Amino acid sequence: MTTSRKKAAPKTAKPAAAKKPVSAPKKPVRMAARKPAKLVGNMLIAQSGGPTAVINRSLVGAVLEARKHKEIQHIYGALHGIQGILEDKLVDLGREDIKTLKAVAATPSSALGSIRKKPTHDDCLAIFAELRRRNIRFFFYIGGNDSADTAYIINEEAKRAGYELHCFHIPKTVDNDLLENDHTPGFASAAKYVVQAFMGDDLDNASLPGVKVNIIMGRNAGFLTAASALARTYKGAGPHLIYLPERAFDIDAFPGQVEAVVKKLGRCIVAVSEGICDRDGTPIAAKFSHEVDSHGNVQLSGTGALGDLLVNLIRAKTKISRVRADTFGYLQRSFAGVASPVDEAEAAAVGAAAVKAATSADIDGSIAIRRKPGKKYAIRLERVPLSAVAKNTRSLPDRFIAKSGTDVTPAFIEYLRPLVGPLPVVARLKGYALRK
Amino acid sequence: MTTSRKKAAPKTAKPAAAKKPVSAPKKPVRMAARKPAKLVGNMLIAQSGGPTAVINRSLVGAVLEARKHKEIQHIYGALHGIQGILEDKLVDLGREDIKTLKAVAATPSSALGSIRKKPTHDDCLAIFAELRRRNIRFFFYIGGNDSADTAYIINEEAKRAGYELHCFHIPKTVDNDLLENDHTPGFASAAKYVVQAFMGDDLDNASLPGVKVNIIMGRNAGFLTAASALARTYKGAGPHLIYLPERAFDIDAFPGQVEAVVKKLGRCIVAVSEGICDRDGTPIAAKFSHEVDSHGNVQLSGTGALGDLLVNLIRAKTKISRVRADTFGYLQRSFAGVASPVDEAEAAAVGAAAVKAATSADIDGSIAIRRKPGKKYAIRLERVPLSAVAKNTRSLPDRFIAKSGTDVTPAFIEYLRPLVGPLPVVARLKGYALRK
Repeated sequence: MTTSRKKAAPKTAKPAAAKKPVSAPKKPVRMAARKPAKLVGNMLIAQSGGPTAVINRSLVGAVLEARKHKEIQHIYGALHGIQGILEDKLVDLGREDIKTLKAVAATPSSALGSIRKKPTHDDCLAIFAELRRRNIRFFFYIGGNDSADTAYIINEEAKRAGYELHCFHIPKTVDNDLLENDHTPGFASAAKYVVQAFMGDDLDNASLPGVKVNIIMGRNAGFLTAASALARTYKGAGPHLIYLPERAFDIDAFPGQVEAVVKKLGRCIVAVSEGICDRDGTPIAAKFSHEVDSHGNVQLSGTGALGDLLVNLIRAKTKISRVRADTFGYLQRSFAGVASPVDEAEAAAVGAAAVKAATSADIDGSIAIRRKPGKKYAIRLERVPLSAVAKNTRSLPDRFIAKSGTDVTPAFIEYLRPLVGPLPVVARLKGYALRK
Repeated sequence: MTTSRKKAAPKTAKPAAAKKPVSAPKKPVRMAARKPAKLVGNMLIAQSGGPTAVINRSLVGAVLEARKHKEIQHIYGALHGIQGILEDKLVDLGREDIKTLKAVAATPSSALGSIRKKPTHDDCLAIFAELRRRNIRFFFYIGGNDSADTAYIINEEAKRAGYELHCFHIPKTVDNDLLENDHTPGFASAAKYVVQAFMGDDLDNASLPGVKVNIIMGRNAGFLTAASALARTYKGAGPHLIYLPERAFDIDAFPGQVEAVVKKLGRCIVAVSEGICDRDGTPIAAKFSHEVDSHGNVQLSGTGALGDLLVNLIRAKTKISRVRADTFGYLQRSFAGVASPVDEAEAAAVGAAAVKAATSADIDGSIAIRRKPGKKYAIRLERVPLSAVAKNTRSLPDRFIAKSGTDVTPAFIEYLRPLVGPLPVVARLKGYALRK
């Protein structure tokens, strides 16, 4: 893994050049020769948005890397993202002992606390005042696209105010919807949870046959719902139908699609994204929820309403007697003890890479994960401009969605398998039937 | 671990004597001398009720033990419990290779398929006809109290029909509500899932504060809901309130209890049993579900309605803005890869013990797990009459419920810890606050 150590292209220049992959220098680079006026000051790091199973790996990866850099004097953490800056609730991460840091790295959820808050212009002014007062020159914000947007706004305001700040976004999201990235830390561990859930639930459904609808996280991107397909380890295994936010959900066709599977297999297990929308783009779940955060996102998780709606639809339109739903909910992102080892390593690496980049010539950006071509799984890390990952998101690409619209392609399985890593083995009896 | 090898007391004799613990004989028992007319024939085993993470350990434990006993000629399995007997859907487990059996043992859910069905008198007559035709003399039914009841009915009908059958129930239930048992196979693994879920979800809730309500399985017994308390690894950790079916749920007091915790801690995470009832004994969830199985049980799982009701209550009665619910659902019993090692070993042991008992002098019964007194965790297995575990269930004892009615006692934690076994380590930052 390597990080770009080239000088960041100015915002007005071709962004493509800034994003160009840079391979690792074969000889150690003499940093001193390239940095005439090295910025010295304190560092502040914070976490934002929905927690993940590995977001603390990124935090600790950054803190441990920062301890190696003399230009970083103090390492501070803000509690609950920018709210902690606004309220001057900071902690000294430089004083944490290594044993605690390593244990925190292995702990799910955001150790510094999180927040879903978009700073106003007044917030930004207050944030700079605090950064100035604390002589903070290196700022790291771990989060998804909304958090990258927050980092971008703070960075732009810093420039306008003439305050020299090296501002980096460190990626995380279980939705896997960040632009520029092959995948993002947090996704693989959430996917592993979804896969292990489906491996067991499929056999549960096979033992007491009926219809089982499982609702999976993913506001706009179907990656996590699609991950359920990796749970198929034998012929006839579920999920038998996969409904993604990338395809319009036809509420009238749905019961018939389920019934067709039941007629063939005697049962049906269904993976449904919480973000499924009708033809007009209205989320099906939005019909039941009116709670909206400051980024304009409707609350989709934390309610069983979508699952129950789909169960009632099947019950009303078919004669299938046993129909159940589970909403996987917050456990997908926070369950203790099911993280993907690849995800853990990569999350730590992006945290460290951001600090390396910020303390070399780069002044701002986000660290993106690129997959190297070739059969063996390998990645490289790369600096990309903040603007490239802020605000907008990506969806599951068409090449990962089967023509039927209710399944994934083999290419998606190939994409996912190395991220999730080893899975429990599930086996079935050979089942030598006795003659009647 | 030892099993009773004493001759079963006749049904009319003192049942207390039959239940008396019997320690392992120090010298090998000369079986031939004690069994003048040894029963020889085929064995049939089946699984019933809700699957668990370790129910296949019991199946494979019984099958592997049966292979050691010459009086068992063929080892058959019935697909989907008694329905497989009625429909003559049997498989030859004697032909399964050892590698498959060992892999199946480690797989959650019921490998033979399950059923929730109470046999009618006509069913029983049909079952005997099938058992006779197949010369089945050893019958094992793995399940909960309803399944023990089914085994009891079949056994009684067999006696009435003058058909010699050694009929054993093998315990399993995530609810942990079987009489006579210290605990039952399946519970500890489900408890481990609940604990790991709460360990992560508590930190998720701490990072984005608000109220989180988690609905946990357990029709009449609060053991699994109470297990959430083992997730508390630091001062202030959740669950902060635990609602059990053993205590009347006061729908009017509930929002205020939650609000009081939020006032103190800034957040509140709540464990709620799906089986909570009001003062009249009516399940709160029953107000939303009218589906009933042939044992008369209302469907409680597979819907998010109870969680959503409680969320709406809190929203209506308090000013707390962030309120969420998750219903843990079927994943508690079937999630792949989170079984308790102690549970795995015990589930295999009860399966083997039933076969040992049935092929020695015992003619019928259930295998119960008793905990040995002493500081170090140890159990013994014991034969108890079928009638002692059939139909009726037990609840969480009063000594495990705190006086407040919304928590457990230290005695419960002591009871639970050795069953669940090692847990992931979660850690928090020391958090050295900066001076303002």
